[in-house]
Amino acid sequence: VGLDPRIELMPEFVRRASRCTASSADTRSAIATFHRIVIDVVAPLVPAVKLQVACFEQYGAPGIDALNDTIADAKRRGLLVIGDAKRNDVASTAEAYARAFLWGGQGFDVDALTVSPFLGRDSLEPFVAACERYGKGLFVLVKTSNPGSADLQDQVLRDGRTISAVVAGLVDELGAAVIGRRGYSSIGAVVGATFPAEARTLRASMPKAIVLVPGYGAQGGTAADAVHNFNADGLGAVVNASRSITYAFGSAQIEEGEFRQSVRAATETMIRDLTASLATRAQQSGGV
Amino acid sequence: VGLDPRIELMPEFVRRASRCTASSADTRSAIATFHRIVIDVVAPLVPAVKLQVACFEQYGAPGIDALNDTIADAKRRGLLVIGDAKRNDVASTAEAYARAFLWGGQGFDVDALTVSPFLGRDSLEPFVAACERYGKGLFVLVKTSNPGSADLQDQVLRDGRTISAVVAGLVDELGAAVIGRRGYSSIGAVVGATFPAEARTLRASMPKAIVLVPGYGAQGGTAADAVHNFNADGLGAVVNASRSITYAFGSAQIEEGEFRQSVRAATETMIRDLTASLATRAQQSGGV
Repeated sequence: VGLDPRIELMPEFVRRASRCTASSADTRSAIATFHRIVIDVVAPLVPAVKLQVACFEQYGAPGIDALNDTIADAKRRGLLVIGDAKRNDVASTAEAYARAFLWGGQGFDVDALTVSPFLGRDSLEPFVAACERYGKGLFVLVKTSNPGSADLQDQVLRDGRTISAVVAGLVDELGAAVIGRRGYSSIGAVVGATFPAEARTLRASMPKAIVLVPGYGAQGGTAADAVHNFNADGLGAVVNASRSITYAFGSAQIEEGEFRQSVRAATETMIRDLTASLATRAQQSGGV
Repeated sequence: VGLDPRIELMPEFVRRASRCTASSADTRSAIATFHRIVIDVVAPLVPAVKLQVACFEQYGAPGIDALNDTIADAKRRGLLVIGDAKRNDVASTAEAYARAFLWGGQGFDVDALTVSPFLGRDSLEPFVAACERYGKGLFVLVKTSNPGSADLQDQVLRDGRTISAVVAGLVDELGAAVIGRRGYSSIGAVVGATFPAEARTLRASMPKAIVLVPGYGAQGGTAADAVHNFNADGLGAVVNASRSITYAFGSAQIEEGEFRQSVRAATETMIRDLTASLATRAQQSGGV
């Protein structure tokens, strides 16, 4: 379940309780309160929450405080926390980002981080080293869910590979150093649910990567699209939905009980939807 | 001048004054104090400071508070503030990042932001819209200063263009909508000082872009390398040096007066160095 704080979309009862138009402490309180309820509802249902760091950062320092609050709440409830920050920079600075998100300590202590591959292999290595050292995970952008992902990621090189395929190769290579007991690597990939054909090819080229799949739900990807990011055994992908779960309620006037019910219902619908599509694919391919 | 906070490298007098091993308030104070001195020295000498957001973020919430302190100090001294954050995401989230850095208000109110083009044109558009609306600037990563920039940015497409050339084309196109009185666009580019040959070609393909040039100094780029990012009239580029200016002092035991002197001397050396190389190039090309 994705947590993308947008205070203007939150139910009135959250905004009212936090007196949101006033000081910055109220911004922090609104975001933290909203997420605490969502986390309480989804913790028994899903393995992880994905925090969209941009949406916290847009509220400045109070948003960043709320990021820490939400990370702590999610961990307290036993959820894995994916920091969707799409960070990167040259190696020495990439190390600072790794320290910010993956080293624990003073930074934002998430379990896994999304990163951009645009600066190349040396920019990814400090993150890989952090994953190895601190038991954290990485999701490298391979094929993003937006239409504009075609502009660079789909460009075809002289040797016939796309840029996405080059990055997938890099993910597979870098990931070989950090394979866990179950055969999956700590180095995963981001592949949008909105591009099922590409997903099939990319999945095959990095069999040990866990694929984080955005774009399901509000962005238009269906469960039937998303399942191409799973391996044949039905494992190896984490599908995310944000807005279609947390902002699924109809009217901003609803009270807390109804809000909880809308989050629960949307999450259960997603789980059923994905489970059914995985079963269908398994039947079609004669798999497990 | 680049401000990349690394508390462990700061002079003892800064760390002592802030009792750095204690609470998080001291982290904020050390970073803010160190930068306040640097800003005081360089404000009469240079037009802008570049804040490496990763280095603030590595200190968590107190680092983010220090980011706000440093932005405010730099603006108070009349410096332009470049937020080197290399952000981006799908369009709706890119807008949240634009709001975080370019809309003023609750976020981090910088004058210009570095962004990654990996997600394509639609991911850049919310930033371009913010530049137009709020009078801010953008620097899109075109060719970064690190060796690994070759891995994706130098890949050659079937039509003979490199990925960097494709991005440069995008910068030129997007920038056409936001040309200022002096003929330069609000949409600029990042091209590392470490790749002078590429810089010449890229400079020619986006004549209205202001080029932010990292990699001078500690990363090995020389003034003679960096000048290829300027137009023939000697304008159109901003060259950055971070570590070679702020951490140029020899011993951590120096006192404030000596520290100020080392920052001033390193800044003046850089200015002389760039001015001389620009003059040499102008003579060679028979230009102005």
